[in-house]
Amino acid sequence: MSYTYDYPRPALTVDCVVFGFEPASALKVLLIRRKLPPYEGEWSLPGGFVQVSESVDDAAVRELQEETGVADVFLEQLYTFGSLQRDPRERVVSVAYYALVSLQGHPLQAATDASDAQWFALSTLPSLGFDHREILECAIARLRSKIRYEPIGFELLPKKFTLSQLQRLYEQILERELDKRNFRKKLLKMDLLIDTEEKEQSVAHRAAKLYAFDTTKYIELKKTGFNFEL
Amino acid sequence: MSYTYDYPRPALTVDCVVFGFEPASALKVLLIRRKLPPYEGEWSLPGGFVQVSESVDDAAVRELQEETGVADVFLEQLYTFGSLQRDPRERVVSVAYYALVSLQGHPLQAATDASDAQWFALSTLPSLGFDHREILECAIARLRSKIRYEPIGFELLPKKFTLSQLQRLYEQILERELDKRNFRKKLLKMDLLIDTEEKEQSVAHRAAKLYAFDTTKYIELKKTGFNFEL
Repeated sequence: MSYTYDYPRPALTVDCVVFGFEPASALKVLLIRRKLPPYEGEWSLPGGFVQVSESVDDAAVRELQEETGVADVFLEQLYTFGSLQRDPRERVVSVAYYALVSLQGHPLQAATDASDAQWFALSTLPSLGFDHREILECAIARLRSKIRYEPIGFELLPKKFTLSQLQRLYEQILERELDKRNFRKKLLKMDLLIDTEEKEQSVAHRAAKLYAFDTTKYIELKKTGFNFEL
Repeated sequence: MSYTYDYPRPALTVDCVVFGFEPASALKVLLIRRKLPPYEGEWSLPGGFVQVSESVDDAAVRELQEETGVADVFLEQLYTFGSLQRDPRERVVSVAYYALVSLQGHPLQAATDASDAQWFALSTLPSLGFDHREILECAIARLRSKIRYEPIGFELLPKKFTLSQLQRLYEQILERELDKRNFRKKLLKMDLLIDTEEKEQSVAHRAAKLYAFDTTKYIELKKTGFNFEL
């Protein structure tokens, strides 16, 4: 089969930047090893061509699952990369998506155009094909900005967490140390934490208090024009 | 000429949401009347097909200028609209852009696919073709969020402005009245205004002080992690 148009058309792809977090380790990103040219055998973001019968959002979900096995992830649109020389084959415009997930619930399984799928710490990335390094940097910047103004971090922690665990999450994403007193002051001032009246179990150090995020209150506060900021 | 591919391809377009502001009137948006089907004779956002020889950003600039005469505008990417039924002709994915400009410097001149180009107050919009109402709502939401965290409003005021003029700009974009004392307190606390030691001339009411925005200081502050918030 072939498909004919009156004017030439750019090809349209999707690319997915999936960040993985677990309290004990560094922030990671999900990469695949390409099975086909261009950049055969090299690492890149999972992604591929948008089919005419699917929405662009659906294409991102499908490509991520096909190439890495990762499903049930909320992919948010990041930015569309539309410059001329992105792909050595031909003119390709790519709509990029990003997501932040807990490392635990997502076993990897490479298939279709990917010969391997792995989590990489941001500090030890391989070189990436296409302009995927630029797409990744754009996603990191968006994540850093977003975590300050929306409580997305809480989804990555256990239901009951310590203030230190939360601070470590912010420090990993922002890639800098935060002042403990200042962080706690801002956090407690928003009054969005529930004191569970429980403490950590079986820890070597002094057991810290466990908190939960008050989602119901946050939703109510947002309606009144409240802005989360941390 | 015709162009043939192994797989079917969505068509790729750009659409531009250009907001126009002047201190004395309501916030407006730039629309064109379509010269060709679909939605012939109806109003829509300026925009059109991306050529393979131009970047997506360049396509937005070109289409805006061709259809409305508006040039020298900083178009920022808004969102890519990629659902299946956006266009009655065929599958079309559209990359939307937005800009905020001063009404004065931009005379309108419709041409190519547009038979007319006009500014419309947001409160008296005609019905729009395609999903352009949805694109416009998305742009309004982005503008409202952005003006709180970046000093984009100052570009739309005269170099020397009164605090009341600035407040009116915010009130128009946010579509709600702001508390005068609170607004001024937040604004002055950021210490980004230069007192010009001048006052309004020839006004009926008591002449108010004129201020200027301290761009140099803002750029320096940003490097230290300062966040604008109003």
